[in-house]
Amino acid sequence: MSSFSPKSFDPLVPESFSEESKVVVDFIAEYYRNIEKYPVQSRVEPGYLSQKLPDTAPYGPESLEDILKDVSDSILPGLTHWQSPNFFGYFQANASTAGFLGEMLCSGLNVVGFNWISSPAATELESIVMDWMAKMLKLPSSFLFSGTGGGVLHGSTCEAVVCTMAAARDKALEKLDGNENITKLVVYASDQTHFTFQKAAKLIGITKSNFRAITTSFSTKFALSPENVRAVIEEDIKAGLVPLYLCGTVGTTSSGAVDPIKELAKISREYKIWFHIDAAYAGSACICPEFRPYLDGVELADSISMNPHKWFLTNMDCCCLWLKHPKFLVDSLSTNSEILRNSASESNSVIDYNDWQIALSRRFRALKLWIVMRKHGSTNLMYHIRSDVAMAKRFEALVARDHRFEIMVPTNFALVSFRLKPELESISSELN
Amino acid sequence: MSSFSPKSFDPLVPESFSEESKVVVDFIAEYYRNIEKYPVQSRVEPGYLSQKLPDTAPYGPESLEDILKDVSDSILPGLTHWQSPNFFGYFQANASTAGFLGEMLCSGLNVVGFNWISSPAATELESIVMDWMAKMLKLPSSFLFSGTGGGVLHGSTCEAVVCTMAAARDKALEKLDGNENITKLVVYASDQTHFTFQKAAKLIGITKSNFRAITTSFSTKFALSPENVRAVIEEDIKAGLVPLYLCGTVGTTSSGAVDPIKELAKISREYKIWFHIDAAYAGSACICPEFRPYLDGVELADSISMNPHKWFLTNMDCCCLWLKHPKFLVDSLSTNSEILRNSASESNSVIDYNDWQIALSRRFRALKLWIVMRKHGSTNLMYHIRSDVAMAKRFEALVARDHRFEIMVPTNFALVSFRLKPELESISSELN
Repeated sequence: MSSFSPKSFDPLVPESFSEESKVVVDFIAEYYRNIEKYPVQSRVEPGYLSQKLPDTAPYGPESLEDILKDVSDSILPGLTHWQSPNFFGYFQANASTAGFLGEMLCSGLNVVGFNWISSPAATELESIVMDWMAKMLKLPSSFLFSGTGGGVLHGSTCEAVVCTMAAARDKALEKLDGNENITKLVVYASDQTHFTFQKAAKLIGITKSNFRAITTSFSTKFALSPENVRAVIEEDIKAGLVPLYLCGTVGTTSSGAVDPIKELAKISREYKIWFHIDAAYAGSACICPEFRPYLDGVELADSISMNPHKWFLTNMDCCCLWLKHPKFLVDSLSTNSEILRNSASESNSVIDYNDWQIALSRRFRALKLWIVMRKHGSTNLMYHIRSDVAMAKRFEALVARDHRFEIMVPTNFALVSFRLKPELESISSELN
Repeated sequence: MSSFSPKSFDPLVPESFSEESKVVVDFIAEYYRNIEKYPVQSRVEPGYLSQKLPDTAPYGPESLEDILKDVSDSILPGLTHWQSPNFFGYFQANASTAGFLGEMLCSGLNVVGFNWISSPAATELESIVMDWMAKMLKLPSSFLFSGTGGGVLHGSTCEAVVCTMAAARDKALEKLDGNENITKLVVYASDQTHFTFQKAAKLIGITKSNFRAITTSFSTKFALSPENVRAVIEEDIKAGLVPLYLCGTVGTTSSGAVDPIKELAKISREYKIWFHIDAAYAGSACICPEFRPYLDGVELADSISMNPHKWFLTNMDCCCLWLKHPKFLVDSLSTNSEILRNSASESNSVIDYNDWQIALSRRFRALKLWIVMRKHGSTNLMYHIRSDVAMAKRFEALVARDHRFEIMVPTNFALVSFRLKPELESISSELN
């Protein structure tokens, strides 16, 4: 144990803050410069890091130099490099200078904007940015604060689904007059819907057997068939169950499939089901007029979410959720707490975002999305999307010309679904 | 509309990344230098920001200079300055240079470590850091990876409570053999427990009437009385209900009260209730031997959480959650998804943290907590806690000497509970 014993301690001195932060900035810039030299997927073995680091925190302080040496020697080799141009593992999560600058401001100001009064700018910028983004996506005014709805930034789609599904649940249970009816509630998605949807349903107490992953097939390019959805709903109603929530996806994880939003929305209206659109990945593309038709019918939906941290150059984490009736969300999630009482909230003239999400505390995420939009402008953001899609189309064409592979479904966005032809696969596995 | 039309676009060029990031670093350093000049609580009126900003995103790109000018002119005046030394609004959320550097690395590397393979270092550093922190708190080895338990970083206590309560619920429902028994499950806390506990219970489907906010009083310094807890539990059992989950708090929000952890833990064992310790605020203090006795009995608990983003100099957001049986959490939250399949996960030799939390995606938060511990060392961190407590004690003594005020409960940590004496309060309101 070191004999170091502090006489005084200031964890934030502006001069050394500035100096040390610039060292880390250069460290990160150097990482970007060299990123293509790393194998995209880390080659470390499970447990590698515990061999390299001590098993307790140090007693005395250590230098930034030592820490960054460990980042270089021990952390970087253990990363899967999501920012590498050679990364094709999942949907991308593209960092940008703009997103990074926004994250720095968020982290540096370090305000906790759970309600309006705890940092008015955090709430107000978020509302403005949500309207900006909604306008870029040409969402109907029923989802905008300048209209009759509104939006909020969450950390992930799963969180957005948990909150909207809980809102739908509480609205339904009130109508059904009794919490015991929770076992009657049924949620609907396709077998291509992101698996966090099922997780969200389980979290809010939906019975596992009341989760419908409706089968899709090659014939609909892995999109939901409205006829199938209607048939499953009808069957549930006959069985005495209560249809609650349907999720339609614009750009599924496995194949980039797009569910028929307008038809699904109409069915949801007919059966009074909450209809959510998960456009986590492909929502970004819909800022371009040529992709916007995929969202047609959104005017009939209850909520829609998309993740700027995927394809919109916004560093992790950032999920936009818009609601036609924010009231339902607030009804379900608001809490009365003495410690949060303030005259602005009581005047009902402000938004208190803690009532729009799971947690109380929240980061000032709006800064980064605001800076991404301003620093790039919608023209560059559209260029970015189109350039990625053009690359994907080029790749698709190359694959299509190669007799060893086959394209599974036409490429809608920047995700190309292809496979080794089955006959070659069997030959290939025989050879191994 | 501008006529700007991009020919090419690179959102992350290392040179300009470095240059622009340093401008923002200096901007933030300047903010810290001047922070005491701002009124701590913003004086803006609701809706002020929409008067200052355009109502749509720009078409063409804007300069960093223009953006930072808007931050200065429009955002800073709308902040409530959580980093001001004059901020006493809620529990603090102290930023530090170390925390900021960690956030920069997290944001710059921008990996999405949902499972081991998606960035092994992110998972492994988190496991190591959770063990480091657990050792600083002298948690029993049953909560450590090096023992038989383990920990995870969440964004907030509410998230930690949602996940552990869902785990408890699913374990109970399996035993009760039917989801319809969800309406029988009861959760317990005190009337001083953080209100997000009630929100979490509602989110996972616990009936509102099955939430017990057990009354505390001045006589127990606003801590739970074990006798009362036992009586309420017994009554519920007699009524055919099933006690599920009890939350004990170390350092409540209103008065810094500490529930009797050991006695509550024993009762929980007796009735087979999940016992969670919420040490969000005061957990940080327990790294000092003189405060550690408040956690005595933790060895009998099922889970414990504390927030380094409150009193541990870690920039938002960072909540540590340790579990004695991580298996129960994973049983409840894991999902089988084709897109996540990989040989490391299937070998069961790695941790896949997406099964320990609500969302799939996750930030590399461990970096900042690691750097906070290394750059300060436990000695400075203890100094920081003791210095804050000493200031609080000094303030408490000054208030106690002033006949206009009274101290409500003795100051355990750095939160001083005092009030204007009732007779003066009535005089003061008559004068207004």
